Amino acid sequence: MEELTRRLAAGLPAGAVVVDPDVTAAYRHDMAGFCAAGDPACLVFPQTVEQVQHVLRTASELRVPVVPQGARTGLSGGANAVAGCVLLSLVKMDRILELDPVNRIAVVEPGVVNAVLSRAAAEHGLAYPPDPSSWESCTIGGNIGTGAGGLCCVKYGVTAEYVLGLDVVLADGRLLRTGRRTAKGVAGYDLTRLFVGSEGTLGVVVGAVLALRPAPAPQLVLAAEFPSTAAACAAVNAVTTAGFTPSLMELMDSVMIRAVNQLARMGLPEATKALLLVAFDGPEQRAELARVGELCRAAGATEVVPAEDQAESDLLLQARRLALTAMDTLGTTMVDDVAVPRSRMAEMLDGVAAIGERCGLTVGVCCHAGDGNTHPIVAFDAADPEQVVRARESFEAIMALGLELGGTITGEHGVGLLKREWLARELGETQLELQKQMKGLFDPLGILNPGKLF
Amino acid sequence: MEELTRRLAAGLPAGAVVVDPDVTAAYRHDMAGFCAAGDPACLVFPQTVEQVQHVLRTASELRVPVVPQGARTGLSGGANAVAGCVLLSLVKMDRILELDPVNRIAVVEPGVVNAVLSRAAAEHGLAYPPDPSSWESCTIGGNIGTGAGGLCCVKYGVTAEYVLGLDVVLADGRLLRTGRRTAKGVAGYDLTRLFVGSEGTLGVVVGAVLALRPAPAPQLVLAAEFPSTAAACAAVNAVTTAGFTPSLMELMDSVMIRAVNQLARMGLPEATKALLLVAFDGPEQRAELARVGELCRAAGATEVVPAEDQAESDLLLQARRLALTAMDTLGTTMVDDVAVPRSRMAEMLDGVAAIGERCGLTVGVCCHAGDGNTHPIVAFDAADPEQVVRARESFEAIMALGLELGGTITGEHGVGLLKREWLARELGETQLELQKQMKGLFDPLGILNPGKLF
Repeated sequence: MEELTRRLAAGLPAGAVVVDPDVTAAYRHDMAGFCAAGDPACLVFPQTVEQVQHVLRTASELRVPVVPQGARTGLSGGANAVAGCVLLSLVKMDRILELDPVNRIAVVEPGVVNAVLSRAAAEHGLAYPPDPSSWESCTIGGNIGTGAGGLCCVKYGVTAEYVLGLDVVLADGRLLRTGRRTAKGVAGYDLTRLFVGSEGTLGVVVGAVLALRPAPAPQLVLAAEFPSTAAACAAVNAVTTAGFTPSLMELMDSVMIRAVNQLARMGLPEATKALLLVAFDGPEQRAELARVGELCRAAGATEVVPAEDQAESDLLLQARRLALTAMDTLGTTMVDDVAVPRSRMAEMLDGVAAIGERCGLTVGVCCHAGDGNTHPIVAFDAADPEQVVRARESFEAIMALGLELGGTITGEHGVGLLKREWLARELGETQLELQKQMKGLFDPLGILNPGKLF
Repeated sequence: MEELTRRLAAGLPAGAVVVDPDVTAAYRHDMAGFCAAGDPACLVFPQTVEQVQHVLRTASELRVPVVPQGARTGLSGGANAVAGCVLLSLVKMDRILELDPVNRIAVVEPGVVNAVLSRAAAEHGLAYPPDPSSWESCTIGGNIGTGAGGLCCVKYGVTAEYVLGLDVVLADGRLLRTGRRTAKGVAGYDLTRLFVGSEGTLGVVVGAVLALRPAPAPQLVLAAEFPSTAAACAAVNAVTTAGFTPSLMELMDSVMIRAVNQLARMGLPEATKALLLVAFDGPEQRAELARVGELCRAAGATEVVPAEDQAESDLLLQARRLALTAMDTLGTTMVDDVAVPRSRMAEMLDGVAAIGERCGLTVGVCCHAGDGNTHPIVAFDAADPEQVVRARESFEAIMALGLELGGTITGEHGVGLLKREWLARELGETQLELQKQMKGLFDPLGILNPGKLF
């Protein structure tokens, strides 16, 4: 271990190698529950590509595992330390290197915070759409590692769709440049996309060329109350089938509504079983909201309230963005992330409610409803071992249900440690074997974030 | 060879194995020039996934190369036969298995023709956007294999963005199912995207889950004439920088304009140096066209003519769609496909003109200008060996220029046989080596479309 830190320090700035366990302890975890974390050998903060190459070369030579990290806002344990590893924090590589309005691209280092990039783009009338809940603190590198989504996806897609090219330091320290700076390109296999969502198991992203798009107009939001989650899902399907493309379509169940009110006194309607928020950002947003309001009523909505203005719209979005934090007030939480075909979402939510009843725990749900991406959140008392077991059981029952309905165990949070036993069930034997072989190809010594994904 | 055809026939329908050289000869080539094609051992037409598995198993056992084919409209020789191969035509697997308006997906076999799917989607008010020039005849499997683009990409993106999941028969005959039917999903490495654009070198696509989107309104087109291609490019950049997202932005140079007029008497303005077509399909299309017209004038346009109605718009689009065919009237043609950053397109076009002059051949250009994707087309007399050499030289000079300007050797046509020597120059040593290793992982015996890409 002394050799490791000595050799790392030789190629890094003063103070960039941290061994103090009081400090490194704070970096052992991301935000996932139920995920083990080992004690790292050290924590390093490189500031340049060459320094990251030095770290990887050293780790390869000494056969020491490397765990890359961003802001550790992940929800699947993908950034958790493994015993004896080098925790490789990219947060000090946080420069926006280019912002090019003519080509609508940004070139960034991995530690740039999502919101910082979004604001820089806005200054040029542009937007970087992916907006995970943690967008004020999460980094672009972490977004790429997990394949992060957000509220915007129903209209603007996920992180993967905005990554044109990557600079990646490979396990042996070589620098790989993938992809392109052009709008289109099909030269060879798409390695860029392979790295997105690979959770640091194939290489360390040290730079990215990202696509930007014109900034949309501010969203106008409609809130509709439903007597059941099924009725709200029917409205979602009606809106989709009618050919609308809202900029946001979010669903919160009654547990979630009460939790948000409790946290922030938002005055959300507590008697309702499901609150659907639908937004548009195009020039016909008022007319679209009116027609969507009619579809909601036809699907059984008891109240349909289009926001009067921007301030009201922002308040509704703020309520939705508080959902995860609000659930934390009800106990320790486990956030699931199951996406199903949009047409099966009603079954999914009924099933989640049944699972909650069966396990006797509070389960609240918010959904990126337009994408069929559900976030059932199990709240429990972590001090009660019996509740912990039931929480874990219900968490897994939710994934099993998602697979049964033709869905995926993770829509946008990733596999990490939390779901690796479930990955095989989703992928099947043939694909799992191929994926492991690909991991072996990029990381023959097995030093890159070992134990994650697989 | 007799053993091969006997064993293939044992698992295929009567008549599905063709050895008659008069027939197979017609299937040896796609539409690329300058690409060698060997004599196949046979041509097979499987109708089911199991039959494709049988073909691959047999080929693996006998170590016989397999070349998958769709409609052979490709422009890089990717579907060309290699000596002694099994030509595996997927055109008889042409069923649309599902078209689901609630989830906005289609599930198709690989031999479905692009236009057939587009029309089927239109019946549900939906669209499958990717629209390569050959869309009336090319197949979805071929589109996936090459990563096809089209005119729509500037607003709606390329084939890759519409492929959610794939069924792939691996070299050894195993069936791999990748991806998902959900809108979002990040479970494991993105193998789906890896297969898109892989030109049949990693596996044979036998089924696809495709994303659909609401059908846009008909496009309204504006035509603007410029005194130089550079002025037209300046207009393109002005339109982009101003935050517009046209549904189409195409540029034709004077050679191309004259060729189209010659072929179809379209009455395009022959005195102009560059014709820019810009279209919008949103509710504010008239207003957008007006503002884009002003930007064109400011960039030096000598004429700006917004189409009066749909019929006029369609005529302009038809003129653009005739470009490739029109060039064929000037001689044998080589179609290049170099994409550069949008901001460098003017330099690219000036450079192409200089190359044309230097080599003394006619070079016309049409561009998907909104994407910086240029199609310089070299016309020459194939009976004159000296012209053939010069055509080849200019074709390569065009790629070299594209790379110099930060572009790619192929925006949407693929590498195939035509550009494989150039792939290494674009990818660099590290990436090329990794890509070859990935090929080896999926195809250890090297039977899948050997000699293509690499």
